[in-house]
Amino acid sequence: MDKNEANRRLIDRINELEKTNDVELSNTQKILLTTDGSITAILDVLFGKITLTTLEQHFEKADKQHARLVNVEEGEEINFREVIMHTTERPLIYAISHIPLKRCSEDVCADLVRADIPIGRILKNYSIESRREIRNICLEEPNDTLKDLFKTDETMLSRDYVIISDGEVLMWIKESFPLSYFR
Amino acid sequence: MDKNEANRRLIDRINELEKTNDVELSNTQKILLTTDGSITAILDVLFGKITLTTLEQHFEKADKQHARLVNVEEGEEINFREVIMHTTERPLIYAISHIPLKRCSEDVCADLVRADIPIGRILKNYSIESRREIRNICLEEPNDTLKDLFKTDETMLSRDYVIISDGEVLMWIKESFPLSYFR
Repeated sequence: MDKNEANRRLIDRINELEKTNDVELSNTQKILLTTDGSITAILDVLFGKITLTTLEQHFEKADKQHARLVNVEEGEEINFREVIMHTTERPLIYAISHIPLKRCSEDVCADLVRADIPIGRILKNYSIESRREIRNICLEEPNDTLKDLFKTDETMLSRDYVIISDGEVLMWIKESFPLSYFR
Repeated sequence: MDKNEANRRLIDRINELEKTNDVELSNTQKILLTTDGSITAILDVLFGKITLTTLEQHFEKADKQHARLVNVEEGEEINFREVIMHTTERPLIYAISHIPLKRCSEDVCADLVRADIPIGRILKNYSIESRREIRNICLEEPNDTLKDLFKTDETMLSRDYVIISDGEVLMWIKESFPLSYFR
């Protein structure tokens, strides 16, 4: 691959998404769907400090599909977290994360379980070096959870990606928000 | 510090910048000034693949001030690079980087010297794990280089930050663009 083509796949995917669905995404939407930086940091700066509410959080043994997402063996312990980032006024982004317990330091694990802290802020607080690899970006119909949280039936923009640290998948994350947000 | 206050300094700085200078920054400007993700990736997605042109590139021994920026001893060898990111139509962002030679792998060093490859793409091509720490964000008057490149006298938005890898400053970067860009 040409050394200047590192982001080609992302550019093509955004163009394809716009063309196939006959939508025009805003700059902010494009950035939220493709950035390898912290989403929380972006929302913090756009909305003033945002808040995270944990909807669900537990450990479970990975089934085949979940194990594959974070590159562990089936049966290994995974932290499953479902959150909504929001201002005092409105929901912003819904996110699910899967984090293999064995790749998580005690400190990070405690913060994941104990408090409503976004992952971007956890990585920053512990000065964790990492890189993000975007896996998929898509438009999709909302499930009941999303319909209920955002009080809408409209199509969602979603992406999923992994955060890699020390050469291993530290976490898999999926984020979704309604197509009319951040326009 | 409260564990949810990780981005407080950035939020305050953007608010202060807007207030002191009586300007309203666009979402894209705020993101470009504060993100800890790749700027090249953002420009690639907003403009289709962008191009980098190297204006100047050489090694020099660090004086006191440059040594402090990248946390090395005075006299150590530093790669100094001055670039402009642009589309076929227009300039986008001007950037200066200082990279201590001793912290640079041979591959990365070769790409810095040899070809017009943005740093965000170099980090991605070599799967380098890192974190970014924003140092300053400001409005400033353009010097002659900036006036000439952007063909304007208008005020510039600038920021500087360090990319940290393996616990050491891998590079110091300063980026600037005119206040009327990305609105």
